[in-house]
Amino acid sequence: MSFPFLQVPEDEAVWVQSADIHRQIVALFQAVGVPAAHAHITADALTFASLHGVDTHGIGNVVGYCKAIEDGVYTIPQQLEIVSESATTALLDCGNGLGFVAAHRAMEMSIEKARAYGVGMVTIRNGHHVGMAGYYPMMAAEQDMLGFAMTNAVPVAHPLNGRKARLGTNPIAFAAPAGQERPFLLDMATTTVANGKINLAQRLGVPIPPGWAVTADGEAITEPPASRSDAWTMTPLGNTHEGGGHKGYGLAVMVDILCGVLSGGGFGAQLQAGENMSWTMAVDIAHFRPVAEFKAQMDEMIRTLHETPAAPGTNGVQVAGDPEFETAAIRRERGIPIHPPQYEAIVATALRLGVEKYI
Amino acid sequence: MSFPFLQVPEDEAVWVQSADIHRQIVALFQAVGVPAAHAHITADALTFASLHGVDTHGIGNVVGYCKAIEDGVYTIPQQLEIVSESATTALLDCGNGLGFVAAHRAMEMSIEKARAYGVGMVTIRNGHHVGMAGYYPMMAAEQDMLGFAMTNAVPVAHPLNGRKARLGTNPIAFAAPAGQERPFLLDMATTTVANGKINLAQRLGVPIPPGWAVTADGEAITEPPASRSDAWTMTPLGNTHEGGGHKGYGLAVMVDILCGVLSGGGFGAQLQAGENMSWTMAVDIAHFRPVAEFKAQMDEMIRTLHETPAAPGTNGVQVAGDPEFETAAIRRERGIPIHPPQYEAIVATALRLGVEKYI
Repeated sequence: MSFPFLQVPEDEAVWVQSADIHRQIVALFQAVGVPAAHAHITADALTFASLHGVDTHGIGNVVGYCKAIEDGVYTIPQQLEIVSESATTALLDCGNGLGFVAAHRAMEMSIEKARAYGVGMVTIRNGHHVGMAGYYPMMAAEQDMLGFAMTNAVPVAHPLNGRKARLGTNPIAFAAPAGQERPFLLDMATTTVANGKINLAQRLGVPIPPGWAVTADGEAITEPPASRSDAWTMTPLGNTHEGGGHKGYGLAVMVDILCGVLSGGGFGAQLQAGENMSWTMAVDIAHFRPVAEFKAQMDEMIRTLHETPAAPGTNGVQVAGDPEFETAAIRRERGIPIHPPQYEAIVATALRLGVEKYI
Repeated sequence: MSFPFLQVPEDEAVWVQSADIHRQIVALFQAVGVPAAHAHITADALTFASLHGVDTHGIGNVVGYCKAIEDGVYTIPQQLEIVSESATTALLDCGNGLGFVAAHRAMEMSIEKARAYGVGMVTIRNGHHVGMAGYYPMMAAEQDMLGFAMTNAVPVAHPLNGRKARLGTNPIAFAAPAGQERPFLLDMATTTVANGKINLAQRLGVPIPPGWAVTADGEAITEPPASRSDAWTMTPLGNTHEGGGHKGYGLAVMVDILCGVLSGGGFGAQLQAGENMSWTMAVDIAHFRPVAEFKAQMDEMIRTLHETPAAPGTNGVQVAGDPEFETAAIRRERGIPIHPPQYEAIVATALRLGVEKYI
């Protein structure tokens, strides 16, 4: 759910069409040696994020991915390997390559297994960034399934009552299809906010609310720090004990267990910068009850939530996914705004790599 | 995780042994017509909660369950019915009976399916209260599996930006076995606090922190209300938009989907008072990787978290389940403290039903 103070001003942004963003990403990834099929999978996920307003996980990150590939952080081209597999489960090795490619394959496998057996679950080791976690559950929702995805990362957040980072922002994503209403799409960091929101505030030069980040002594930070250091950490969802900070912290550890320990790829504190272990699950609704009945009840639930009387001073109740799907509808018409510093970096990378400029 | 200001003063409490609590619960349930096997399953779960310090979900509730059974809210004896079933999934009908009995059977089925196929998932309709949600995942963890349980309830919490209750406290519970360390056991309401904590504060006559509950106009309540009304609601985990209240709200809806919509039993706003739909899942670790390696990595993760330097003014970092297992170790020796008003109500119920007093 977006914050108005973290919007890139529209008159400053460079506006581009999603098809052009997709072409640009494919071309950039291919220029650094990524096979066409893998470049397309990655571009699909990044363009989906940009189109749906999740700009912290969209085209803006392509410069960093290209640099990491050029620096040899990734093994490109990558080889996915199924380390173990059963009717409903698999352990997938990402081959130290693009996390997008492994997470996409993991969700495809989860969906195939769920169609055959009801549930499919895949955990991923030796992986990297998967982008917007919510992209993968949507693959399942489009197949009339429930979809889940999680991913861990190097520590940026303290556990409740700790003064050092021990946990990544460790997002949980979940999607469920509806009938006439839009799908339900929850995509949430288990920290108070996602990492990218603090980076964005720093780039925009705006303060962050107290409660998002603290010094090692637990004092609130409102000036967004320019870089990672031991001097500050992000807060778990809930922040304080009275606010339920043990819950956000506990959810983050659950993510570490499913992604890092079930796969053996490593919990947050064991990871190198840029490493991410991930996990996907698909659940076939038809194995439980008729899909049409499920969807009709989803519609009723979503309408009941939307019809909740608004609290004073608010615009009323949204359902998870509303901001993203509403943004996508607008951006399909108007194009996608890119923050000028990010736009210039993308164009400079294209120029440097001898790639045509499509945006 | 408990709050010191919500402890029943030890010198006021009535101290009883867990074995006596168990006998008392079995006898009370049998006196209102519950078959012995079902009374034992329910007593196991309630005694586990009392022993582990989750007093809001322990023996104190037995008076209410007996009354609900006598009032005909429950169908006793109940018939569980498998409505649909596949290799890895089932939809279980609780027969309008004790939620404990259905959730216990659902987790047994989940474990059997996970042992055979890797994953087992059961959703429950036509159900009631399951007590401490974390009890069921522990059944899986004891079998070297990951365990999950969720349950929904009639609305007590507002969705973010809403002024009416639309969601139950909808807990999420998750357990994972470790090797030499204690299991990881997360058991969390998706509201800022569980319902029972506000009831307990009211019974103890102590104020609650701002942020747990609000008036319909969104103003913080610090005097715990004596009863449910439209005048106040509980907050989702995260509370405000800046605090991540859309995340706690989103998780609560996810619970409603898995428990209420996947089962067809009803999302929160469709339920009658006392109705609860539930969901369980077991995941067999051995289907992914050797259990001993998983447990060794769990130990390493738990030790890393425990060794995090303490934030100033705190007792340092705990891992989910620590408070419960530490309390259980103490209570096995010292007995279980019961708040006198609850103790007297239990004894009065035993007397009224002609049941022997064991506590």
